[in-house]
Amino acid sequence: MEKIAVFPGSFDPFTKGHESIVRRLLPLFDKIIVAIGVNSHKQYFFPLEKRKQWIEQTFKGDVRVSVDNFTGLTIDYCHKMNAKYIIRGLRTTTDLEFEKAIAQMNKSMADDIETLFILPTPELSAINSTIIRDIVRNGGDASRFVPEGINLKL
Amino acid sequence: MEKIAVFPGSFDPFTKGHESIVRRLLPLFDKIIVAIGVNSHKQYFFPLEKRKQWIEQTFKGDVRVSVDNFTGLTIDYCHKMNAKYIIRGLRTTTDLEFEKAIAQMNKSMADDIETLFILPTPELSAINSTIIRDIVRNGGDASRFVPEGINLKL
Amino acid sequence: MEKIAVFPGSFDPFTKGHESIVRRLLPLFDKIIVAIGVNSHKQYFFPLEKRKQWIEQTFKGDVRVSVDNFTGLTIDYCHKMNAKYIIRGLRTTTDLEFEKAIAQMNKSMADDIETLFILPTPELSAINSTIIRDIVRNGGDASRFVPEGINLKL
Amino acid sequence: MEKIAVFPGSFDPFTKGHESIVRRLLPLFDKIIVAIGVNSHKQYFFPLEKRKQWIEQTFKGDVRVSVDNFTGLTIDYCHKMNAKYIIRGLRTTTDLEFEKAIAQMNKSMADDIETLFILPTPELSAINSTIIRDIVRNGGDASRFVPEGINLKL
Amino acid sequence: MEKIAVFPGSFDPFTKGHESIVRRLLPLFDKIIVAIGVNSHKQYFFPLEKRKQWIEQTFKGDVRVSVDNFTGLTIDYCHKMNAKYIIRGLRTTTDLEFEKAIAQMNKSMADDIETLFILPTPELSAINSTIIRDIVRNGGDASRFVPEGINLKL
Amino acid sequence: MEKIAVFPGSFDPFTKGHESIVRRLLPLFDKIIVAIGVNSHKQYFFPLEKRKQWIEQTFKGDVRVSVDNFTGLTIDYCHKMNAKYIIRGLRTTTDLEFEKAIAQMNKSMADDIETLFILPTPELSAINSTIIRDIVRNGGDASRFVPEGINLKL
Repeated sequence: MEKIAVFPGSFDPFTKGHESIVRRLLPLFDKIIVAIGVNSHKQYFFPLEKRKQWIEQTFKGDVRVSVDNFTGLTIDYCHKMNAKYIIRGLRTTTDLEFEKAIAQMNKSMADDIETLFILPTPELSAINSTIIRDIVRNGGDASRFVPEGINLKL
Repeated sequence: MEKIAVFPGSFDPFTKGHESIVRRLLPLFDKIIVAIGVNSHKQYFFPLEKRKQWIEQTFKGDVRVSVDNFTGLTIDYCHKMNAKYIIRGLRTTTDLEFEKAIAQMNKSMADDIETLFILPTPELSAINSTIIRDIVRNGGDASRFVPEGINLKL
Repeated sequence: MEKIAVFPGSFDPFTKGHESIVRRLLPLFDKIIVAIGVNSHKQYFFPLEKRKQWIEQTFKGDVRVSVDNFTGLTIDYCHKMNAKYIIRGLRTTTDLEFEKAIAQMNKSMADDIETLFILPTPELSAINSTIIRDIVRNGGDASRFVPEGINLKL
Repeated sequence: MEKIAVFPGSFDPFTKGHESIVRRLLPLFDKIIVAIGVNSHKQYFFPLEKRKQWIEQTFKGDVRVSVDNFTGLTIDYCHKMNAKYIIRGLRTTTDLEFEKAIAQMNKSMADDIETLFILPTPELSAINSTIIRDIVRNGGDASRFVPEGINLKL
Repeated sequence: MEKIAVFPGSFDPFTKGHESIVRRLLPLFDKIIVAIGVNSHKQYFFPLEKRKQWIEQTFKGDVRVSVDNFTGLTIDYCHKMNAKYIIRGLRTTTDLEFEKAIAQMNKSMADDIETLFILPTPELSAINSTIIRDIVRNGGDASRFVPEGINLKL
Repeated sequence: MEKIAVFPGSFDPFTKGHESIVRRLLPLFDKIIVAIGVNSHKQYFFPLEKRKQWIEQTFKGDVRVSVDNFTGLTIDYCHKMNAKYIIRGLRTTTDLEFEKAIAQMNKSMADDIETLFILPTPELSAINSTIIRDIVRNGGDASRFVPEGINLKL
């Protein structure tokens, strides 16, 4: 059976930290779907199309990585895509506690899906989408925090 | 003197975790008031009347538990109700830090009121109202996380 | 039924923080037993008799507080003393995680016993028996951190 | 070279905790600039002019403390003011993780600026601007948490 | 290429929590090696032979799980066994910080090996080998915390 | 008045993380004393003379950095050396909580001494003396984690 993982997030924007997670876990799976979750009641900073395009260009040429967007529960999306694994990066202890609640409630609703966590390498561990948006909003240059070739200018 | 405790919260919605806290602490008090705090500048997901009714039906028949709503400071409400104890559940270290600031500032403003904390049992420790709202919003079934007989469908 | 709480610890030494916990929770119980746990494979800094005597003199005249020592599991000791409550202070998030594991394993072995937590008041929240021992060991004066009248000099 | 530090924040409102940080670090610097960051997309509770005036009156007569407001990135503001140091208070572990991400991203964009942290004294460690706003909003008296002479009434 | 993971630990003793980690991750790997690390300068509570036998009997009949012991660095052991993955359970934020330092230093010494983390299911999240040893030492019954058929009596 | 800081620790061994802290804070002080605390009841891994020599060679030629060792309380040592500042690195939230207790108890015993904290740069944030000792003990090569020219081989 094909081993498929979903890497869900808002990726607002996709960072070097996110890129590294995908590259490090690719050898373990047959396919990783980077899946942009869209909540109609949330505001995003970068347009969905931009976010999608940035991820696509980051992995272009690698057929094992696909990019998608979805609404609804992550576990429902996983079922639809035949994915048995959710992958998440874990930077801080604050992250851990929220991720733990989500992972445990997901596990209780969908026992067939496992969430795997990976820690960022040190030099990427400070990269945070919230702070990147703040830098861009204030006219700063955040290009060093995102994959090569992404132009964050609005 | 009667031992009265206030269990304040937004209970949006009231979960099995909240229910368990009340049941476990009931033997210690003569009366526990489940008190829904209402802030006029906050948006709630479930209507106040629904939230109140769900708590009432959970404890109906037990005269030691009452349900109420209040505006203003929790310590002012406690004084009004003659309650010397505030009870709170503590799930995570992030909870702890915010609860600590609130409890210590409350203690400094109202030295006659103590805040007691209780930890959830393991199987309830992942239950989180924020995530329940997210499940309901996305059409998922969160009934396993709330007391028997509560219908979360909007 | 009498409401009895056990406040277990090594109290090496008993601090102003411990004293405050007992005084703040006394109105809630008919009796609080300050119970010094003794593990034969652990080294203590202050002799058991000293530790016991310091606690006794702190609460002398108050018949609702008794001092005892015990070996074995805390829940077994509670059963023996007819205590339905364990009380614990909670200073830090590191404390929380260890206390949580212990409280949950205790609850799973002895469902009739509840553990209640209370947070120190701000001015007492930095007081830590480990650091007090370090101060004493290095010839410093730690008397401000322990109840009136306790002489920590070895 | 003059040693200049920037103490950035929203100071909504300025608390006794903030005041203490400035006073404790003043001997280390030639000048501390208390700098109110203004984000056009954020709502503040107290008007900027009030917040500025409260800080000014707290340190009036001390020429080493100045008060200012700024928009844009903190590191850009530091460069403009010739400040090589950012100072921040650290209350909780949740604070630490966000401060760490910000400090590390700042360091990566402006290697010539260092962020220094100081911990509150125990009796001030529970003071939190968010909770103060909540107290004021609910008609409570929060004057004990702010410097002498500040009238928080709206 | 065969996907091999090492699950290192002292397993003193192996718990239901450990068992669950192996079972949940087995579908992802061709082989999981439960590897008991032996440090000559550390004291263990249960004899190595017992610990090994308990793990073997837990997974007997499943050829994808093997049990081994090793001395030296975990990454050196992984290289020897051709394992590209280390798996670790993550219970608490305190765990996270130590695991993070180890995982990042391992990654810096052996870039070809990834550490994956998985969170316990709620009902297993309180299980802790340290506390189990404490229960056994005090004559308590900890059998509910270890896999079926393990007799912890010394 | 000369601004003198003490950087206390066991430095067992001194790491690149420690080195970076000294270099980043040097511009703020006239003198930084790297002070090896010696507790007679503690075992160290590397001999005191080695640890001292490694720090000296790291900063040789820079007269603003001196190396010393001391017994007794850090605040007493600061008083003796006329140092008004203690500097400490802060890596994790677990660190924070212990450092907080120590800093607050120090402040309460010696109000004239301030403790300043600095966070490691990302690429150094995983470096941990405990883990380095473990690597050396197991025959690994930890030279990348210590300053240039230090030979950790025993």
